[in-house]
Amino acid sequence: MIDDLAEPSAAEFDLPRVLAALADRHRLAIVQFVDPHGESWCSRVMQDAGLEMSKSTFSHHLRILRLAGIVTKRHEGTKGYMGLRKDDLDSRFPGLIGSILSADVEAVR
Amino acid sequence: MIDDLAEPSAAEFDLPRVLAALADRHRLAIVQFVDPHGESWCSRVMQDAGLEMSKSTFSHHLRILRLAGIVTKRHEGTKGYMGLRKDDLDSRFPGLIGSILSADVEAVR
Repeated sequence: MIDDLAEPSAAEFDLPRVLAALADRHRLAIVQFVDPHGESWCSRVMQDAGLEMSKSTFSHHLRILRLAGIVTKRHEGTKGYMGLRKDDLDSRFPGLIGSILSADVEAVR
Repeated sequence: MIDDLAEPSAAEFDLPRVLAALADRHRLAIVQFVDPHGESWCSRVMQDAGLEMSKSTFSHHLRILRLAGIVTKRHEGTKGYMGLRKDDLDSRFPGLIGSILSADVEAVR
């Protein structure tokens, strides 16, 4: 599967962009779901995180998260897997992602 | 001076709104300037934080920060003073504002 989305290196992370990517209830739910589950099959995240949205809306959110450097996507056969870039985020903005992952966010359902 | 902007209580803070308010290079510069200086005269922040913007643009940014609960504004005579609500933010989202205040943000000048 071809995927030409350029995920930034940690050195390229931009704080306003990271914050904007996380400033959305649905994207927070995605990130908070993937954190305890580890690298996850994208379709499973969409279903199990309780997000009521179309596949294209989910792809849109995933794209914003990837462009900001918050998640990475890996392809295996026809499946896509997403993982949280916690170490990269922590190396640039120590403590930030941890505080966001442990925050109480109102349910999106 | 009349000011009817309703600043939220800490219990009313909304994480996506807080992150969106901080997802801007100029608003980050305001917050990172006020942090070490303590409660600051708004006009001084506008001048000394090196923000090249009109008074109305500054007011717009201040309004977004206040509505999210990040700063509070107090009037004394004809002057307005702004202060960072660090304790309130820490009580709701432990570690978040500290990690953002200590982050390296590219210069806005």
